[in-house]
Amino acid sequence: MKKFVLTIAREHGSGGRIIGKKVAERLGVKAYDSELIKYTAEKSGLSEEFVGNIETKKPTSFLYDLYLNAGTMSIYDQAYIAQSNTIRELAALDSCVIVGRCADYVLRNEESCIKIFIRASMESRIDRVVNVYKETDEKSAERFIKNMDKKRAYYYNYNTQMEWGKSRNYNMVLDSSYGTDPCVDAITAYLNGIMG
Amino acid sequence: MKKFVLTIAREHGSGGRIIGKKVAERLGVKAYDSELIKYTAEKSGLSEEFVGNIETKKPTSFLYDLYLNAGTMSIYDQAYIAQSNTIRELAALDSCVIVGRCADYVLRNEESCIKIFIRASMESRIDRVVNVYKETDEKSAERFIKNMDKKRAYYYNYNTQMEWGKSRNYNMVLDSSYGTDPCVDAITAYLNGIMG
Repeated sequence: MKKFVLTIAREHGSGGRIIGKKVAERLGVKAYDSELIKYTAEKSGLSEEFVGNIETKKPTSFLYDLYLNAGTMSIYDQAYIAQSNTIRELAALDSCVIVGRCADYVLRNEESCIKIFIRASMESRIDRVVNVYKETDEKSAERFIKNMDKKRAYYYNYNTQMEWGKSRNYNMVLDSSYGTDPCVDAITAYLNGIMG
Repeated sequence: MKKFVLTIAREHGSGGRIIGKKVAERLGVKAYDSELIKYTAEKSGLSEEFVGNIETKKPTSFLYDLYLNAGTMSIYDQAYIAQSNTIRELAALDSCVIVGRCADYVLRNEESCIKIFIRASMESRIDRVVNVYKETDEKSAERFIKNMDKKRAYYYNYNTQMEWGKSRNYNMVLDSSYGTDPCVDAITAYLNGIMG
């Protein structure tokens, strides 16, 4: 198979992360998520915790205004740039899967980059955050999921000036409501067809 | 494999029709397109040519107003209803693939209905309409394609009150710019994963 980079963006609770890991396992390549955070933290001098959370942490407007007025780059922008450099370096090394972190946008000019977005019905996402991730209870689940999506969309749209989840930005938008395995099968087959 | 109905909507020039035919061949089921037109014409008393063209023929507002003012159903609405009945009858018979004709909307409450939308880059669509379909020349191709999409979107949005091509309406939105075969592979794998 030719060298490729597969990027996976995902709605919260859609199982996108586990789909990325399974595709990587099946194709015998690395899936980057926590390693990416670690490398970025090492290079930028920021903490792993901070880098790990930038995707869902919105800069407060007060702090952000302070940075802008001081004419310096905000710590969020610094983290984003360090992370983008890490993504480009890892993508240049070998075939791999990268989950989240605007990787589809960072690698938009790479011909070998195949971009996936995973979505699912609210019902199956509630089931996953309550029973698999155990992040919240059934009552608060929908509000919790919508809040996470809002943060991811804000982060993506702010950094890319594009629209998170819009099908034209991806090669495949896939519904995982029927389970993660059919998605793994579909992505692997598509990638084999293109790169095989 | 469990009984299924696969609907394929598509941008003009994306190769969606041929993808539908190939998937049907691979799974050993029927792909409905011209048969659907024939059955609908037989049942409704409308001509095959008229039924075949409703997807891209917009009713003129003058004629349409006349129908509405007369308190009768327009010939377009009659054709749409006859076609929807045909789709429901065929879908009840056996597993099959149905291309276009708002079939995803008509069968929206069928649990066994998997909904696909095929899109592609403008570059690859131009290549297909000029060199494969031979519908127009290179110079007029982009305008021709956009016009066809506009008509399909109008037809879909008018009849369904939903948005044509919006990823939330489909289980899979797939980019065929890399060729039709990777799409056939991905759809077949996804369907096998769900229904197999």
